[in-house]
Amino acid sequence: MQFDASGLKFDDRGLIPAIAQDAESGEVLMMAWMNEEAIQRTLESGKVTYWSRSRQSFWVKGESSGHVQELVDFRFDCDKDCILVTVRQTGPACHTNRRSCFYTAVRDGNEVELMAPMV
Amino acid sequence: MQFDASGLKFDDRGLIPAIAQDAESGEVLMMAWMNEEAIQRTLESGKVTYWSRSRQSFWVKGESSGHVQELVDFRFDCDKDCILVTVRQTGPACHTNRRSCFYTAVRDGNEVELMAPMV
Repeated sequence: MQFDASGLKFDDRGLIPAIAQDAESGEVLMMAWMNEEAIQRTLESGKVTYWSRSRQSFWVKGESSGHVQELVDFRFDCDKDCILVTVRQTGPACHTNRRSCFYTAVRDGNEVELMAPMV
Repeated sequence: MQFDASGLKFDDRGLIPAIAQDAESGEVLMMAWMNEEAIQRTLESGKVTYWSRSRQSFWVKGESSGHVQELVDFRFDCDKDCILVTVRQTGPACHTNRRSCFYTAVRDGNEVELMAPMV
């Protein structure tokens, strides 16, 4: 069946959450948002492209930092309201220079930092 | 530093997206939503608990199906607006009986089913 991005479920801002996972290690790197055109751009270019809610513009991940995400596989879930992209990540995914944005855990009620910034 | 769930960023419905990942295989299983109390219940009980938007009630994952998610690690991202739980998943995570909700890929413009329901 041919994929039609307009068949996905977008929220009232026209956005859908997109999880980025390292294709090789399986590590969950980040979560950001896409709109219908960001999905099309991602699929056509092979460069993962989000919609920046703060800047209200397309955000080709790594365009300014060089920390690009090369698309390996594009998936969506059973409810069609969430996207999972597996990617080849260059450098850190997080703007704090950490490999993943999920670097803080809660253990025994305390915040624990799991990884340091890459140097 | 002590964790305070009220320091996370919830949307205008009081919700935050939560990604569930298999702690052993690294597979991304599903994405659902939590509110502040669902987070507290998850941390206190060790059973991953979401907020069901459709039913407007707490949803202890697996409570009726038996497909529970035992919490292994609770993490949040740099922006404090997304949660990642790593879990020990009993049975399929998806209501379609598939291991993961992300069983459809888009390849060469077509939808491809990646896994069959568990039997």
